[in-house]
Amino acid sequence: MSVTVGELAALLGVPLEGDATVSIHGVAPLNRAGPGELGFLADPRYLPALRETGASAVILRAEHAAECPAPARLIADDPYLCYARAVRALFPEPPAPPGVHPSAVVGQGCTVPDSVTLGPGVVLGDGVVLGERVRIDAGCYVGDGVRIGADSWLKSRVVIQHDVIIGQRCVIDSGTVIGSDGFGYANDHGTWLKIPQLGTVRIGDDVEIGANTTVDRGALEDTVIGDGVKLDNQIQVAHNVQIGEHTAIAGCTGIAGSAKIGRHCAIGGGVGVVGHLEITDNVVITGMTFVAHPIDRPGSYSSGVPMQETARWRRNYARFRQLDDIARRLARLEKRLLADDEEV
Amino acid sequence: MSVTVGELAALLGVPLEGDATVSIHGVAPLNRAGPGELGFLADPRYLPALRETGASAVILRAEHAAECPAPARLIADDPYLCYARAVRALFPEPPAPPGVHPSAVVGQGCTVPDSVTLGPGVVLGDGVVLGERVRIDAGCYVGDGVRIGADSWLKSRVVIQHDVIIGQRCVIDSGTVIGSDGFGYANDHGTWLKIPQLGTVRIGDDVEIGANTTVDRGALEDTVIGDGVKLDNQIQVAHNVQIGEHTAIAGCTGIAGSAKIGRHCAIGGGVGVVGHLEITDNVVITGMTFVAHPIDRPGSYSSGVPMQETARWRRNYARFRQLDDIARRLARLEKRLLADDEEV
Amino acid sequence: MSVTVGELAALLGVPLEGDATVSIHGVAPLNRAGPGELGFLADPRYLPALRETGASAVILRAEHAAECPAPARLIADDPYLCYARAVRALFPEPPAPPGVHPSAVVGQGCTVPDSVTLGPGVVLGDGVVLGERVRIDAGCYVGDGVRIGADSWLKSRVVIQHDVIIGQRCVIDSGTVIGSDGFGYANDHGTWLKIPQLGTVRIGDDVEIGANTTVDRGALEDTVIGDGVKLDNQIQVAHNVQIGEHTAIAGCTGIAGSAKIGRHCAIGGGVGVVGHLEITDNVVITGMTFVAHPIDRPGSYSSGVPMQETARWRRNYARFRQLDDIARRLARLEKRLLADDEEV
Repeated sequence: MSVTVGELAALLGVPLEGDATVSIHGVAPLNRAGPGELGFLADPRYLPALRETGASAVILRAEHAAECPAPARLIADDPYLCYARAVRALFPEPPAPPGVHPSAVVGQGCTVPDSVTLGPGVVLGDGVVLGERVRIDAGCYVGDGVRIGADSWLKSRVVIQHDVIIGQRCVIDSGTVIGSDGFGYANDHGTWLKIPQLGTVRIGDDVEIGANTTVDRGALEDTVIGDGVKLDNQIQVAHNVQIGEHTAIAGCTGIAGSAKIGRHCAIGGGVGVVGHLEITDNVVITGMTFVAHPIDRPGSYSSGVPMQETARWRRNYARFRQLDDIARRLARLEKRLLADDEEV
Repeated sequence: MSVTVGELAALLGVPLEGDATVSIHGVAPLNRAGPGELGFLADPRYLPALRETGASAVILRAEHAAECPAPARLIADDPYLCYARAVRALFPEPPAPPGVHPSAVVGQGCTVPDSVTLGPGVVLGDGVVLGERVRIDAGCYVGDGVRIGADSWLKSRVVIQHDVIIGQRCVIDSGTVIGSDGFGYANDHGTWLKIPQLGTVRIGDDVEIGANTTVDRGALEDTVIGDGVKLDNQIQVAHNVQIGEHTAIAGCTGIAGSAKIGRHCAIGGGVGVVGHLEITDNVVITGMTFVAHPIDRPGSYSSGVPMQETARWRRNYARFRQLDDIARRLARLEKRLLADDEEV
Repeated sequence: MSVTVGELAALLGVPLEGDATVSIHGVAPLNRAGPGELGFLADPRYLPALRETGASAVILRAEHAAECPAPARLIADDPYLCYARAVRALFPEPPAPPGVHPSAVVGQGCTVPDSVTLGPGVVLGDGVVLGERVRIDAGCYVGDGVRIGADSWLKSRVVIQHDVIIGQRCVIDSGTVIGSDGFGYANDHGTWLKIPQLGTVRIGDDVEIGANTTVDRGALEDTVIGDGVKLDNQIQVAHNVQIGEHTAIAGCTGIAGSAKIGRHCAIGGGVGVVGHLEITDNVVITGMTFVAHPIDRPGSYSSGVPMQETARWRRNYARFRQLDDIARRLARLEKRLLADDEEV
């Protein structure tokens, strides 16, 4: 797709400086962009790259426009957001041709509109209900009674187990499993007795889930993922978890059973959230943090331990093992000196 | 399925108080249960919910029966275990209709009893031996020479690589891979030379494994998972690992090569176990702990670092980096004061 | 396969002591090896097992040969590397019979040499280019425009999304997903706007990737994995990451977006690497370390916190939360004592 900068500015609804007739056909980082390419400056650390960019147009804040050598400048308060919109306009996802591949297996009593695309080897169980333009790529398995809203897209080899409900415009990437059994057992004199997991998973609209993530079905009630939630790859969401609207969670994070996460949270990678606790709205959790207690105030929370050279780490860590003792010894010294003071 | 409370009490072998004719068709949490539903009280924190429950019957300990407004009370020493049995009785897994889907591919020399169910797109290699009533759902791959015991169930898109042995009544959830190659390399002047992984994986009876978990085959000897082990989702079990009977491991835990874990252990989520160490029986490891040393005494072990507000965390962590220095300075002060004492 | 020790020594290019006519058909650990089996001694901790081994031949350093009761000794400076070569010679991977299974689906304009093996249910998109002897096992999905070099092997149920480039002699284990979308969103007044991920993944030669690992495609530029890299299971590689040649990474590690990892690094399991930082060549990262800062010097780095008994851990951790305060109090004491000194 190719557009003029003038067309792009109109599409994005932002002011344009410079030559409106410049043609744009691609995007690139400022330091690599050439003729016909669009760049952006969000972080002032890249100002040196801006000053030497070969891009034909750059999205930036007004304060940086004077330093931009490109023939056209698009002025935006939030250049990264404006850039996201520009990329989406320049590179729209081509619609999949509708139709059911002959190797797909469709169960009984399914609702499959003509606008739906089912790839090779797709298997739908019985009673599956698909919305308009749902796209299910090669090798996905969709269990009995699943409902998927219009314009949602399962990439290849996704598994949706029985009775899961997925909203509209969702995207689920390859290898992800939704509706697997929760890890629920009662201990029976040393052996573990499985508790049937009777709930399901309810996923809202505009949810995006990465690759090889797992979302367990609820034990009694449902696991619930709110509208607009974004989950990265390799995340584990246990049974009965609730994730509030528009929360984003980075890869390799694990959320234990019945945890309730608020809305508009941003959770880093490798985080662990223990079960049966609540995190309020607008909470930021940095990478590799262990959320072992509820969080009832918005803000940023951490416990990821940054690395040191191994030898130094070991010395410090050895002291950590004595930390309670160190604190007691310090208190004794303080008391002793206080006593000295009083003697004086 | 619907039963009277009297029938349920007889089935569970527990005493009943109240009206034995009450009919039960479902289960629900105490605070949401209504007519025809069964609840349970295991944790006294939920006593307020008990006092207001609309459940028709509740499983609880004798000491709480007087506070229960439900028309029927089932008295159990371990209400959660009794509840698990009740749910299993009320919601039995319906047997899969036996048969081989026409799209399934069965290799040469396989043993596939008539009672087996093979779903669409299932692929069996050569020489696979399946027990009675084995159920293999859509899209599973089972490699050459695999043996699976009676009544075991592979959910959709499971991969079992060649020669793996799985016991009876096992359940393996979607996306899990058993028998992948161990991570074994010799360093050859800076490049890595793969060591063929000649062992396999042996899984006992009544083992349940969650979704997207991986269990590597052994290098020389086998990776072994004992009877009754329960593994959650997204767990990594490396080559030659041994996991003792009836140990349960929560999601996102990684176990490095040749680690040997005892029986009846409970290992939390996000735990890391280093290779070539041994953990004795009856050990509890809490979430996000790093097991860097052997454990030869039963008990509970931890190193998960609970989160703090990020600003405070950073201040404390900055001091941690000086901890060895802090300890030395403290020792100097103590010595100095001791010297003062001696002077006196 | 069976060879004489003399043939094996010639093949490996190492000196032989003892009976060259001994026949070898297998390998085993020293403590279990019997007639016809080959063992090795790399770590002197296993000297007791050497002294009692029933192996017919042992690979070891010259200094240990005198203690070896086996009829034949193969002398190597690096016994483990020599053993790796021996195992590869004794147990070569049998070539897959070429051919396309009738249930495979091949898109338009694909290059599929006669020497290629496509298993049951394999799906190739359009324009896929496969090198000689590429082997793609049951149920893999290979997207449009993917190129895979000669002698590479995808095990069952691998997903390679569109336009990914894979070199020669690569092995990718089951359940792994290459080319999933990066986790790229711009925040639009509280909701997340997906940024199309326009790059791809470029994988060099001799790369091996374990099971259920994920490698995201680049946002603008490509995600790049260098020649000879070895990735274990359950690893997450985010968009735009670069991993240098011959680096090995153990399971459950997550690497955030745009991180650049050097060559010949060895990264332990459960490690987290934050985005947009650079790690130089020849760096070792031990297990469960959080790489939160760039590393510009070769060496070993750590922050994995080894476990303690839970009760003791809690006491120490409680003090950690006061560590900044402890350090300040210590400084005050030091100042006070210094003041005393000056008064004297």
